[in-house]
Amino acid sequence: MKILFVGGTGTIGKKVTAKLQEKHELVLAGSRSGDVQFDMTDYRSIEGMFQKIGKVDALVVAAGGAYMGPLAQLTEEHFYQGIRSKMMGQINLVLVGQHYLNNGGSITLTSGILSEDPIANGTVLSAINNAVNGFVVGAAGELLQRGIRINVVSPGLVEDSAEAIGSYFPGHNPVPMDRVVNGYIKSIEGIQTGQVIKVY
Amino acid sequence: MKILFVGGTGTIGKKVTAKLQEKHELVLAGSRSGDVQFDMTDYRSIEGMFQKIGKVDALVVAAGGAYMGPLAQLTEEHFYQGIRSKMMGQINLVLVGQHYLNNGGSITLTSGILSEDPIANGTVLSAINNAVNGFVVGAAGELLQRGIRINVVSPGLVEDSAEAIGSYFPGHNPVPMDRVVNGYIKSIEGIQTGQVIKVY
Repeated sequence: MKILFVGGTGTIGKKVTAKLQEKHELVLAGSRSGDVQFDMTDYRSIEGMFQKIGKVDALVVAAGGAYMGPLAQLTEEHFYQGIRSKMMGQINLVLVGQHYLNNGGSITLTSGILSEDPIANGTVLSAINNAVNGFVVGAAGELLQRGIRINVVSPGLVEDSAEAIGSYFPGHNPVPMDRVVNGYIKSIEGIQTGQVIKVY
Repeated sequence: MKILFVGGTGTIGKKVTAKLQEKHELVLAGSRSGDVQFDMTDYRSIEGMFQKIGKVDALVVAAGGAYMGPLAQLTEEHFYQGIRSKMMGQINLVLVGQHYLNNGGSITLTSGILSEDPIANGTVLSAINNAVNGFVVGAAGELLQRGIRINVVSPGLVEDSAEAIGSYFPGHNPVPMDRVVNGYIKSIEGIQTGQVIKVY
C-alpha cells in the first residue's frame, strides 16, 4: 500500500520505515528531510503537503514534541509548544488527511507512556499524549463510517532512547525497538480501530 | 476549609456548591457571576483573580466548554476553542493556583466520560477531556511533594442535563446528581491524589 509517513528520521521513525519499506510504497514527509517538506505546526502547510501527495492508503505520524520541566515553573506557553506540535500537529494531519485516505485506509498516530505512568518534569507530555489518545478514541467511530481506521501507538521509553534520556525515567524498562515497530505494523496492517496500542 | 469554586452556576456547579456550603467557606468565581469575575481563557485574568482572593485550601473547577460537531467538518479552530477553555483554562488555573494553595490543600478539575466512551460529534471533547485527565496524572507527583493533592472528576451524562442533551448520548444512563456531587466531595475531603474519579 501507499503509506505517507511523517517523521521517518526520528528514533522510532527510522526503525518503522525500515520495516515498512520491505512491503510498501513509502512517501516520507518531514520538516527538513524526506520526499516532501512541511511544517506540522501549520495547518496550511499540512494542506499543501497533502495537495502535493494526493491520495494514500495509510497515514502514519511519528513526530511532534513537547516541553519537559518542573510543574512549579511551567507557563501556558510551555503547554502551547506541545499543543501546536505533538497534539494539534497530529490532529491537524488527521483533519486534513481524512479527506485524502483511500477507502479501507488507516491512520496511526503516536502518544507515549507518560499519559498514564508519569515522571517528574513530564506533566506537559502526560497531558498532550492523553489528548492524542482521547482524540483517537473519539474519532474512530465517525472515521469507521467512512471506511477508515485510526489507532495510536503509545510507546514506553524505547531502547534507542534509553542512553540519552533513560535517567529521566527511573525504573522504566526500555522497550525493544522490534516491539515498537510491531505496534505500528499492528495498526497499519491489522483490522483494529480506536485502539491505544500500548507498547510497554 | 476555604474553597475557591470556579463555575458555581453551571449544571454541576450548582449542586456541588449547595452541598459544599454546608461545611465550608466558599469563594465563587465565574465569568459573569459569583464573588469575583474573571476570564478562565485568559492567563492574566486568572492571575488577577488569585491576587484578589489570596490563599485557599481547595480549588475546584467545574467550568469550561468545547465544540461539538462532525469530524469530517472540524477545523483546528474548533479544537482551539476547547483548548483555550476546558483544557488550558483548567490547566492555567492550576499553574497559577498551585502557588496560592495552603499546605495540605487540594485541586479538583472536571473532565467527562467522552474521553473513553465516545459519541458522534464528540471528538473535540474526547481529546480535551483526556488531556485534562493526563494533566492530573502527570501533575500529581510534583504537587504531592509540596503537600498538595489533585484529582479530576469525570462525570457521565448527568441527570440534570439529560433532557437537554441526552439525545446526543444514545444508551447512556444519566448519572444521579448526588453521585456526581460525591465525586467532588471525595476529591476535596478525601486523601487520594492523581485520580480520575469516574462517575458513571
